[in-house]
Amino acid sequence: MFAKHNPEIGARPGTLAIPSGSPPPRITVVQYDADRVDRREIADVAELRGLHDARSVTWVDVQGLGDEAVIRAIGEAFELHPVALENAVNVPQRAKTELYEHHQLIIARTPVIDGELVRTPQVCFVVGEKYLLTFQERHFGFFDPVRERIRAGIGAIRSEGPDYLAYALIDTMVDRYYPVAQGLSDQIEELEDFVVENPHPEVLAQIHGLRRRLAVLRRVGWPQREAINALLREQTPFIGDRTKVFLRDTHDHIAQIVELIDSSREMASDLAEAYLSNVSHRTNEVMKVLTLMASIFIPLTFLAGIYGMNFENMPELSSRVGYFVVLGVMIALAVAMVVFFRRRGWIGRPPPPDFHADRKPEQT
Amino acid sequence: MFAKHNPEIGARPGTLAIPSGSPPPRITVVQYDADRVDRREIADVAELRGLHDARSVTWVDVQGLGDEAVIRAIGEAFELHPVALENAVNVPQRAKTELYEHHQLIIARTPVIDGELVRTPQVCFVVGEKYLLTFQERHFGFFDPVRERIRAGIGAIRSEGPDYLAYALIDTMVDRYYPVAQGLSDQIEELEDFVVENPHPEVLAQIHGLRRRLAVLRRVGWPQREAINALLREQTPFIGDRTKVFLRDTHDHIAQIVELIDSSREMASDLAEAYLSNVSHRTNEVMKVLTLMASIFIPLTFLAGIYGMNFENMPELSSRVGYFVVLGVMIALAVAMVVFFRRRGWIGRPPPPDFHADRKPEQT
Amino acid sequence: MFAKHNPEIGARPGTLAIPSGSPPPRITVVQYDADRVDRREIADVAELRGLHDARSVTWVDVQGLGDEAVIRAIGEAFELHPVALENAVNVPQRAKTELYEHHQLIIARTPVIDGELVRTPQVCFVVGEKYLLTFQERHFGFFDPVRERIRAGIGAIRSEGPDYLAYALIDTMVDRYYPVAQGLSDQIEELEDFVVENPHPEVLAQIHGLRRRLAVLRRVGWPQREAINALLREQTPFIGDRTKVFLRDTHDHIAQIVELIDSSREMASDLAEAYLSNVSHRTNEVMKVLTLMASIFIPLTFLAGIYGMNFENMPELSSRVGYFVVLGVMIALAVAMVVFFRRRGWIGRPPPPDFHADRKPEQT
Amino acid sequence: MFAKHNPEIGARPGTLAIPSGSPPPRITVVQYDADRVDRREIADVAELRGLHDARSVTWVDVQGLGDEAVIRAIGEAFELHPVALENAVNVPQRAKTELYEHHQLIIARTPVIDGELVRTPQVCFVVGEKYLLTFQERHFGFFDPVRERIRAGIGAIRSEGPDYLAYALIDTMVDRYYPVAQGLSDQIEELEDFVVENPHPEVLAQIHGLRRRLAVLRRVGWPQREAINALLREQTPFIGDRTKVFLRDTHDHIAQIVELIDSSREMASDLAEAYLSNVSHRTNEVMKVLTLMASIFIPLTFLAGIYGMNFENMPELSSRVGYFVVLGVMIALAVAMVVFFRRRGWIGRPPPPDFHADRKPEQT
Amino acid sequence: MFAKHNPEIGARPGTLAIPSGSPPPRITVVQYDADRVDRREIADVAELRGLHDARSVTWVDVQGLGDEAVIRAIGEAFELHPVALENAVNVPQRAKTELYEHHQLIIARTPVIDGELVRTPQVCFVVGEKYLLTFQERHFGFFDPVRERIRAGIGAIRSEGPDYLAYALIDTMVDRYYPVAQGLSDQIEELEDFVVENPHPEVLAQIHGLRRRLAVLRRVGWPQREAINALLREQTPFIGDRTKVFLRDTHDHIAQIVELIDSSREMASDLAEAYLSNVSHRTNEVMKVLTLMASIFIPLTFLAGIYGMNFENMPELSSRVGYFVVLGVMIALAVAMVVFFRRRGWIGRPPPPDFHADRKPEQT
Repeated sequence: MFAKHNPEIGARPGTLAIPSGSPPPRITVVQYDADRVDRREIADVAELRGLHDARSVTWVDVQGLGDEAVIRAIGEAFELHPVALENAVNVPQRAKTELYEHHQLIIARTPVIDGELVRTPQVCFVVGEKYLLTFQERHFGFFDPVRERIRAGIGAIRSEGPDYLAYALIDTMVDRYYPVAQGLSDQIEELEDFVVENPHPEVLAQIHGLRRRLAVLRRVGWPQREAINALLREQTPFIGDRTKVFLRDTHDHIAQIVELIDSSREMASDLAEAYLSNVSHRTNEVMKVLTLMASIFIPLTFLAGIYGMNFENMPELSSRVGYFVVLGVMIALAVAMVVFFRRRGWIGRPPPPDFHADRKPEQT
Repeated sequence: MFAKHNPEIGARPGTLAIPSGSPPPRITVVQYDADRVDRREIADVAELRGLHDARSVTWVDVQGLGDEAVIRAIGEAFELHPVALENAVNVPQRAKTELYEHHQLIIARTPVIDGELVRTPQVCFVVGEKYLLTFQERHFGFFDPVRERIRAGIGAIRSEGPDYLAYALIDTMVDRYYPVAQGLSDQIEELEDFVVENPHPEVLAQIHGLRRRLAVLRRVGWPQREAINALLREQTPFIGDRTKVFLRDTHDHIAQIVELIDSSREMASDLAEAYLSNVSHRTNEVMKVLTLMASIFIPLTFLAGIYGMNFENMPELSSRVGYFVVLGVMIALAVAMVVFFRRRGWIGRPPPPDFHADRKPEQT
Repeated sequence: MFAKHNPEIGARPGTLAIPSGSPPPRITVVQYDADRVDRREIADVAELRGLHDARSVTWVDVQGLGDEAVIRAIGEAFELHPVALENAVNVPQRAKTELYEHHQLIIARTPVIDGELVRTPQVCFVVGEKYLLTFQERHFGFFDPVRERIRAGIGAIRSEGPDYLAYALIDTMVDRYYPVAQGLSDQIEELEDFVVENPHPEVLAQIHGLRRRLAVLRRVGWPQREAINALLREQTPFIGDRTKVFLRDTHDHIAQIVELIDSSREMASDLAEAYLSNVSHRTNEVMKVLTLMASIFIPLTFLAGIYGMNFENMPELSSRVGYFVVLGVMIALAVAMVVFFRRRGWIGRPPPPDFHADRKPEQT
Repeated sequence: MFAKHNPEIGARPGTLAIPSGSPPPRITVVQYDADRVDRREIADVAELRGLHDARSVTWVDVQGLGDEAVIRAIGEAFELHPVALENAVNVPQRAKTELYEHHQLIIARTPVIDGELVRTPQVCFVVGEKYLLTFQERHFGFFDPVRERIRAGIGAIRSEGPDYLAYALIDTMVDRYYPVAQGLSDQIEELEDFVVENPHPEVLAQIHGLRRRLAVLRRVGWPQREAINALLREQTPFIGDRTKVFLRDTHDHIAQIVELIDSSREMASDLAEAYLSNVSHRTNEVMKVLTLMASIFIPLTFLAGIYGMNFENMPELSSRVGYFVVLGVMIALAVAMVVFFRRRGWIGRPPPPDFHADRKPEQT
Repeated sequence: MFAKHNPEIGARPGTLAIPSGSPPPRITVVQYDADRVDRREIADVAELRGLHDARSVTWVDVQGLGDEAVIRAIGEAFELHPVALENAVNVPQRAKTELYEHHQLIIARTPVIDGELVRTPQVCFVVGEKYLLTFQERHFGFFDPVRERIRAGIGAIRSEGPDYLAYALIDTMVDRYYPVAQGLSDQIEELEDFVVENPHPEVLAQIHGLRRRLAVLRRVGWPQREAINALLREQTPFIGDRTKVFLRDTHDHIAQIVELIDSSREMASDLAEAYLSNVSHRTNEVMKVLTLMASIFIPLTFLAGIYGMNFENMPELSSRVGYFVVLGVMIALAVAMVVFFRRRGWIGRPPPPDFHADRKPEQT
C-alpha cells in the first residue's frame, strides 16, 4: 500500500523523490480577504516571491509534482525546511502533522474507489503566517466546493485566516470517507445472501477482498484521526483556537468513520465464519444422503446375493413362496431402516427451529 | 450504524444536516425553582428570548428537528456556537461531551429494541448558566419520569441547578441499557438449547444476529461511558461538584453494562464454537453408521458373489453342507466385525462421561 | 452476572434498591482499643448515635439489608452521602473505591462456588474517622477469623485504626479467591484425560462451563485489583500509610490470582482446540477403515460379478482351473491393496512418534 | 503455577507461610571490601546482631526457610518490616520490587527445566545500607559463580556496594532464562518434522505441552522485566546510579528473552494450525481413494449384475460375442473414469507447486 | 532469532561476548570538516589516541569484532563505559538507544534476505563529542553511499556534526527495510494463485514461512522504531535539534514499514483461511461425486441382484418382456436420481455467483 515508493537506498536527506508519472506542476494562487477575491494561474515561479501580503490570505495550490526545479523554487519562495519540502512531494505517506519553525505541515489522504482497489491520494498542507500551500500529486478536484465558497463568499471563510481554509479543505477530504466506507459496508451486507444460498469459494474471496479494502481504509483513516487529534492538542501558533473548535468536529467525523470501518470488519469476519459453517452443513447433508442410500441398499443387495449363490443344496430356493418371503423381508428391512434414520433426524430437511415461540418481549 | 447520515461533501461548517423525516419541532419550556414549577408549550420561537431568568432553572425541550429556521432561532436565542448547533441536530453521532465558551454540550444515546434491530435514538444536551436545552429527533417519552419528579417536587431536583437536571435525564437514558443488554443476554442463553438439540444453520445465523446487536450496543455504550468519564474529569464551570458525585454513580452503571455486554459477546462466541463442534460431532455419527454398514456387508456380499459365479468346476457348490457352512462363516464374520467396532467405540452411543466421580469438593 | 438487578428506570438518585430476599438487618457493634474490646448487638438504630468515640475504633457490621428505614437511619447516624448509601445496598456491583467528604467507600466481592455457578457476594466498607461500617447482603461468616483476632488481641489489629481493620477484612475476602481459582484450574486439568479418551460433546460443554466460571471470576477479580490499586494511589485521609504497606501485599495477592485465572483460561482454550482436533482425528480413523474395506472388496466383488454373468459363451467358465485361478487373483489383489494401504500408513495404528530419541539435554 | 500456596484464609498479616518441605535455614555470611573477604557459616542467629559493619559489605545468604523462629530472628536482626519478611518466605510469588523505609525488597525467579515441567524457584533480595540479605527456598547453587568472583576479586564487585552485588546475582538468574527459552524454541522446531510426516494427535499434545511451558516461562519472565524496569525508574536510596547502568543491561536481556518466548509461542500456534491442516489434507487423500475405487467399480459391478440376471429372454446372453463386448465396455468405462478423475486432479499425488519459477530476486 | 547468543551464566559484567566467527577488526578512520576529508586505515590501535580533534568530525568504523584486545583498546581510547563496550560487541540485540555520561549509544539492525531466512546484521553507534564510533560484526557495505557523500561533499553532511553522520547512516539502514518488506508482501500476493489452483499443503507451509519471516522483520523493525522515537524524545547533548528534524523523518519511514509488515501479516492470515476453505471445498466436491455414483448405482445393482436370485418360482423371470421392463425401470430410476441431485445443486459445477448484477455504483 505504501511501499510502491522505492527511495534510493542511502539517498541524502532533502532528495526529492518525485513520484513517477506525476504531471508538471500547475500553480493556482487565490488571494482573498473579507472584501475581495483574486484568483490567477502562475506560469513563472518567480512571481511567487512578491505575493506575500499581510492583509489578505494567500492560497497557493500546486497540482502535479513533476518538475523538481519548480518544486524547489516554491520551497525557497516560502522558506520551507528541506525535510518539509521532501515530505510535501514524497507521495505515499501516513497522515501526520509536524511543526517547523515557520510553518505547520499536515499530510492528509482521502479514499477513492477505483474498481477493486481503494486508492488514497494525498495532499500536503503547509500552513504559515497568512498563507497556505497545498501540494497535490495531480489534479483531483477535491477542493472545488471550497473554491466556490471562497469565490461566492459563503459562510465565514473569507473573514478567517489560512488555518480555517486548511480546516475547510481537510474537512472536505474527511467527508469523502463516508460514502466509501458505507459502500463497502453495503457490499458486505449484500454478500450475506450469497453466503446462505450459494457458498461458492468465490464468495469467500469476495469477503476477503472487501476485508482487504476495509483494512486499507482503516490504515489510512486511523492515522488521519491521530493527525487531527495531534493538531488539536499541539501548541502551534499556526492554528488558532477558533479553528480548533471546528477541527474538533472533523475529528469526531473521522472517529465515527473509523468505528464504522471496524464494525464492517467484524461483520466480514462473522460472514466468513457463517460461510465456512454453511459449507460444512452442506457436506453434512450430502453425507446423510450417501449414508442413507448405502445403509438401506447394501444389506438388501447382500440378501439378494445370498440367493444368487449356486449351491446345489439350498432348500429355500425350491420353496414355492421363497422368493416372495425374501421380497417381503427386504421391504421390511428397508422400512425399518427408514424409520431408524427418520428417528435420528437424518431424513427430511427439518424446518428451521422456531425461536420465537417462548420468547418474552424484551422491552416495551 | 452511523453512516446513514450522508452530509454533502464539502458543505461549509455550520450547515445543519436536518435528519430527513424528523417532525417539526415542538418546544416545551419548564421553569422551576424550589417553590414553583411553570410548564408551557411555545409556539413562536421569539418567546424564548425573554425566558432567561437568573433565579429559576429553565429547561427548553425541543422534540423534532424538522424546521431549520426554528432550530437556528433557538440557537441564536441561547447564543449557541455554530458547531454546537450543528452537533445538536446531526443525528447519528457518538456520545461525547464538549465545552464551549457559554455552555457544555453533551450527546447521549440510549438503545431501543425494534424487532431484529437495536435503534439508538440520540439526545443532545446543552447545559448553560441556569438553563438546559435538550434536542430530540422526535418525541421519545424517555424523560416523562423526570418531568413528573419536577412537577411533584420529589427528591432534590427542584433545589438543584440545570447540571443536576441534565444528570437526572442522562441517568434515565443509561438506565434503559439494562433491560436491552439483559434481553440479549437471555436470548443467547435460550439459544444454548437449540445448539445442543438442533444445530441448524439458522441457529448460527441467530447467534451472529445477536452478536451484531451486542456489537451495536457496545459501540453505543462504550463512548457513552467515555463521555461521562470525560465530564467527570473535565474542568467545566457548568457541571458542579455536587452533581459530579451523582454522575460518578451513572458512570459506574454504564461501566457495568459494558461489562455485561462484553460477557454476553464472549458467551456468543463460545456458543458458536459449540455449534460448530456439534455439527462436526453429528457428521461423525453419520459417518460411523455408514462405515459400520458398509464394512459389515461389503465382505459378506463379496462372499455371496463368489458362490454366485458360474464356473463349472467349483467343488464347494456340490457339497451338501456348503451353503450352510458359508452362511455360518458369514454370521461369524458379521459378529467379529460388530465386536471389533464395539471395541473401537463406534457402536452404541456412549453415555456422557461421568465427570463428578472423582472430584474433590472445591470449597466448604 | 450483574444485571439481575433491575432498577426502576428513571428512579431518582438516592433511591435504595433493596435486594429482594435480603433478610432484615442485624447490627453488631464492636468497639476496641489496645486495652479493651466491647461487642454487642444493637436492636434499635437510635443507639448508634451515641456510639462515636474518639479513643477507640468502632466497627458497625450490618448483616442483611431488608429494611429500608433501618438502613436510612444508619446512613443518617454516620452522615453518609446519599450516593454512598445507595452504593452500600445496591448489591451486584463492581468492586471500586470512592472518596466522599466524610468517608472512604470500598466495594469488595469474593467468590463462592455454588454447584455449577460462581456466586460473588458483596460487602460494602465505609471507612471514616475512627469508625468502620460494613454492609453485607446476608450473614456470610467471612469475617469470623478477624473478629476472633480482635477478641483475642492477636497481632497489631487492636492498636491500629479502622483502616487497618478494613484492610484485614478485605484481605480475608481476597484470600477466598485462591481455592476457587485453584479448584477451577484443577477441574480443567482433570478434563484433559476425557478429551483424550472420550471426546464426547459433553466434554466441550464442560470446558465451556469452566471457561464461563473463570470469566465470572475474572470479571470480579479484575476490578477488585483495580480498586485496591486505586486505594493505594489515592490521596485519602482515611487510609494511613502504614496500612497501605499491608494493602500493597493484598494487591499482589489479587494480581497473582488474576494471573492464575488468565492462565487457566488459556489452558481451557488449548483444551477446546485439542478436543476438536481429537474429534477430527477420530473421524479420520473411521474414514480409513471405511476406505480400506470398500477399496479392497469392491473390486473383488466386481470380479465375482463378472463370472456370475450368464453368457452362454464364456470360455473361462468351462476351464477346470478357472475357479481357482480367479480365487488366486482375488487373493493377490487383496494382498496388493493391503500392502498399498500399509505403505500409505492407513493400516495399523502407528505408535505415537518418539520425540525423545534425538533430543539434546536442555539444561544441567 | 502460583496457587499451590494455600494461605490460611483470614490469617493475620505477618503470618509466615513457611513453604512445606523447606529445609531448616543454613546461613552463610560473606563480608568483603576491596582488601579482604571473610566467609563463614553461622550456627546461632544471635551472631547476626554484631555483624553490621560500616566499612565492608555484608551478604547474609539464607538457604532453606524451614524454621520460623530463625527467620523471625533474622527479620529482627535487620529490622525488616513484617510484610517484607512475609514476602521473603512466601514462596510462589510474582517478581516484584518494593521500597520500605530501611530497605529495598526484590523478588526474582529463574526457570529450571524438570522433565515436562518448568519449575521457577524464587529468591528474595533485601538490599539495605551496606548489607544484602538473600532468602532461598532451598540450596540452589545459582550464586556460586558470583561467590567465586567475590573470593577471587574478579572485576569491580569487591569495590562496589550491596546494590551491585544484588545486581550481579539477579543478572545471574536472568542469564538462566536463555537456555530454557532456547531449549523450548528448539523443541518446537524439531516438532515441525513430525507435523509433516506423522500428524498423530500426540504431536498436537506435545505442541500444547510446549505452549504451556512457554506460557509459564512468560508468566515468570514478564513480571521479572517489569520488576527490573520499576527498579530502574524508582527513586530509591538503596540502588545507586552506577549500578542502574548495569541493571539497564539486565533489563535488555530479559526483554529480549520475553521476545524470544513470544516468538516461540507464535511458532507453536502456526505449528498447531499446520498440524490441523495436514490432518485435513490426509483425510482428503483417503477420501479421494475411496471415491476413486467406488466410482470406478460400482458401475461396472452393476453392469455385471445385469448379465447375472436369470431372465429367460435375454437376447445378449446367447450372442457369441456378448461376453467380450461387455468386457470391452467395462474396460472402456473404467478408462473413461480414470481419465475424468485424472483431469480433476484426483489421481496421482501432484508434485508440490513450483514457487520459484517466476520469482524475481528480492534484494541484491 | 536472538538467542543463538549463549552468554556464560554468571559472567561478570563487562565480559565481552565476542561473536564466534567474527573476523579480526579492520579500523577505518574518516576525518572531515567543511573544507577537507582525510581517510585512512589504522593498523595499530594506539594511533587512535592522538586522533581526537576539536575542529573536525572523526568517524572510526570498526568492521569485525574478532579480537578482544583491540576492542578493549578502542574502548579505552574513547573512554567507553564497560557496559557500552559490552553492548557494542554483543551481537544479537534489540535496537535501542542509551545515554551514558560521555556518549550516546545506538543499536540498529537492518534486514538482509538470505535464501529462506531473514538475517538482521547489527551496527552499534557511539556518538560522542565530535566523534562517531561504529561497530559492525563484519564488512557489510551498508555505508558506502554515505562514505561517497562525505568524499564528494554532497549535501550538508560535511558541515554538520557526528550526530548528523549517525543519522545519515541509520537512515541508510532503515531504507533497506523497504525492499525486503515489499519482497515478502509480493510473495504473499503471488501465493494467492496457488491457493486457488492447487491447495497443496506445501502452499500452507510457504504461507507459514512467509509469516515467520514477516514476524522476524517486525520483531526487528518495531524496536527500531521505538529506539528512534526514544532518541527524538530524549534530552541528550549528543543529538542536536537540527538533526532531530531529520530523524523525525526516519521515524516516519520505519513507522510506515512496520505498518506495511502488519498489513502483510493480515494478508497472510486471510490467505491461510482461504487455503483451508478451499481444501474443504474440494473435499466437498469429491464427496458429491462419490455420493452421486453410489446413490445412483447401488439401488440399480440391488435390482439386478434380485433377478439374479436362483429361486425356482420367480414368475417375472419367465416373462418375455421381464428383462426389458427391468431395464426400463432401471433407466427411469437413474434419471430420477440425476434430476433429484441436479435440483439439490450437486451435479454440475455452478458458475461463480454474479455479484455485480445489482450493485449500485459506489462513488463517482
